[in-house]
Amino acid sequence: MEILNTQVAIIGSGPAGLLLGQLLHKAGIQHIIIEQRSSEYVASRIRAGILEQVSVDLLKEAGVDQHLREYGLPHHGIEILTNGEKHRIDLTGLTHGKQVTVYGQTEVTKDLMHAREQAELISFYEANDVKIHDFEQSPHVTFNKNGMNYKVNCDFIAGCDGYHGVCRASVPQDKINTFEKVYPFGWLGILADVPPVSDELIYVQSERGFALCSMRSSTRSRYYLQVPLTDKVEDWSDERFWEELGKRLDEESRKNLVTGASIEKSIAPLRSFVTEPMRFGKLFLAGDAAHIVPPTGAKGLNLAASDIAYLSSAFIEYYLEGSEQGINEYSEKCLKRVWKAERFSWWMTHLLHRFETESEFDLKIKQAELAYILSSEAGQTTLAENYVGLPYELGQFENIKQAS
Amino acid sequence: MEILNTQVAIIGSGPAGLLLGQLLHKAGIQHIIIEQRSSEYVASRIRAGILEQVSVDLLKEAGVDQHLREYGLPHHGIEILTNGEKHRIDLTGLTHGKQVTVYGQTEVTKDLMHAREQAELISFYEANDVKIHDFEQSPHVTFNKNGMNYKVNCDFIAGCDGYHGVCRASVPQDKINTFEKVYPFGWLGILADVPPVSDELIYVQSERGFALCSMRSSTRSRYYLQVPLTDKVEDWSDERFWEELGKRLDEESRKNLVTGASIEKSIAPLRSFVTEPMRFGKLFLAGDAAHIVPPTGAKGLNLAASDIAYLSSAFIEYYLEGSEQGINEYSEKCLKRVWKAERFSWWMTHLLHRFETESEFDLKIKQAELAYILSSEAGQTTLAENYVGLPYELGQFENIKQAS
Repeated sequence: MEILNTQVAIIGSGPAGLLLGQLLHKAGIQHIIIEQRSSEYVASRIRAGILEQVSVDLLKEAGVDQHLREYGLPHHGIEILTNGEKHRIDLTGLTHGKQVTVYGQTEVTKDLMHAREQAELISFYEANDVKIHDFEQSPHVTFNKNGMNYKVNCDFIAGCDGYHGVCRASVPQDKINTFEKVYPFGWLGILADVPPVSDELIYVQSERGFALCSMRSSTRSRYYLQVPLTDKVEDWSDERFWEELGKRLDEESRKNLVTGASIEKSIAPLRSFVTEPMRFGKLFLAGDAAHIVPPTGAKGLNLAASDIAYLSSAFIEYYLEGSEQGINEYSEKCLKRVWKAERFSWWMTHLLHRFETESEFDLKIKQAELAYILSSEAGQTTLAENYVGLPYELGQFENIKQAS
Repeated sequence: MEILNTQVAIIGSGPAGLLLGQLLHKAGIQHIIIEQRSSEYVASRIRAGILEQVSVDLLKEAGVDQHLREYGLPHHGIEILTNGEKHRIDLTGLTHGKQVTVYGQTEVTKDLMHAREQAELISFYEANDVKIHDFEQSPHVTFNKNGMNYKVNCDFIAGCDGYHGVCRASVPQDKINTFEKVYPFGWLGILADVPPVSDELIYVQSERGFALCSMRSSTRSRYYLQVPLTDKVEDWSDERFWEELGKRLDEESRKNLVTGASIEKSIAPLRSFVTEPMRFGKLFLAGDAAHIVPPTGAKGLNLAASDIAYLSSAFIEYYLEGSEQGINEYSEKCLKRVWKAERFSWWMTHLLHRFETESEFDLKIKQAELAYILSSEAGQTTLAENYVGLPYELGQFENIKQAS
């Protein structure tokens, strides 16, 4: 058994864990990252691609925005396509100058891993049998790697290990409340090296179901279709995908659509999930370990970032200022922002997808809601200000709140 | 059989029929009103009490706003009470100067009936066996009064006879679409001659269910409680009502609450209902005959008024300008505004009431939505601009649209 001592043990090397590590490192706080998967697996997971202004600012704060500044695509608007007509939401005009940045989660992960290598920080990848212990009193983590048993003694454990991770699962049932909604459809997504159909994202509400035209760069497109959960990837040839996408688009977009071979294709279920609280003694959950949003509002990665903004701030206050305030307020502050993002993600999903169970009245109400939103500046602003991201509420990152 | 000839036969002498009559009279268009109830019954029905700016302007246009100007209470804001805290929505500040006016529907009806008497216009009250005929080709109405049979030949029939009226029921099933939602609770309302608890309306979202503190004047209050549909008026003594209302209020309001004997008490179910289209040849449905909203958004009477604005405008165009455009566009124009008001009424109802069927996730989302709306100027504006009333879309009343 090898024994290690650190201040913060971070479980999980996704964007949340890596970003926390980077911010702690910059503040001179010791930490170790423990991840059960390989670094190659972590680096190649294709996920979200839209960063809020506050997330970009946080990556800058962490010193990992060089590549992002060079290759990220600033977007100032999105299109909503409904009843065969596109309506532009002027994100920047409606939010006093805010924007979002198109930049793949894989790129964020790679940038953070690269910075971590440069700084020679300790990560244990392919750690087996990771367990967290005694997080109410004297927290420690045990795992096994290459036949060696490890024990990590620490002050705090940061649970950044995702929805299926060990951290949330280690909390006794009677100390945790979970709230969940599962949606009766999935997103079939493909990645293809073709130029995107439009400079801006197009969110499509159609009788055939939802679609999303997104992108990773000016030469790489990301498209999604709402499909029944019973569908399998094998049911969807590239040809069938492009044909169905075309049917959900307006004529102009259909004409501009460039098709090509997919380089990735998958079906993801949609889920809303929240854990309350997000702190259990000296264990802090962050990102997907604590909450899941359906991808419609592009909030998943951004919520992980805001958790980490609050959590790193709390640790910095604790170690550098001797204050437990940030630690004590962590859960409440996170959850306030989480629930607003959950609400927005649910609302976007509800509004733009077809639900088999909805009545004709429900459908009409949704059409009226969309018509109202698109006809009202206030309505459009509610969409825009949530899409670009609601501001953080913290002293430490007050500059970020202002800048955005 | 007595035979009468007129241009427009109006079925129903509620606010919609009376207002249409008054506007047609002012334009020199002949009409007759036929109503199956007595004038006393019609004049005493207690209903809505909030007029949008555009409704007030329309009543002015009709020349029946003298009493309204004197006794109507202009309101510039409403309060939303949630989690024991009141939040003011500054209706006027958020809508570039618009307001609503507290003025009972009974008063509107009386003012219109009074104007009608003064002008010596023809109304048949207590008409039995009212039937409408051949409204696709050569419309006419038959009824019986005091043993005499009447036949009214006309160019058009205006169906202003409410949800249970004969007009909508006369349309063949295959020509009409209806959309409906019934809510699993009712509103227990009382009227009492006590000063209102607050100068402005208070909409109450509480764990015990919705409540509304409204008023008719500075000495007459109107209060409502969400109750199960299985409750009966007899279950609710005045004492029980005041006690339950107090429990749903915040401490300050509870202290200010003046109780007293009720002068009216009733339980009304909540319903959303829309008919499409609203025109069938030479028959035009207006008001409750075509659509019902739950009372939460105070839209029922105002939607009747906007239907009548469109319908009177269409008849004026037809008779005075020889144009059928208004007639042809009536249904579409009305329904656009109707669905937006239906959406808003559904949303207010959904957001502020407790539903037994909602999951903990649904409840949390509603709390987050309310928290977001109350924290965002854009969010508050969406509520305010719908509450004061969306603008009309018509040439004839362009002045009203501008003025408001």
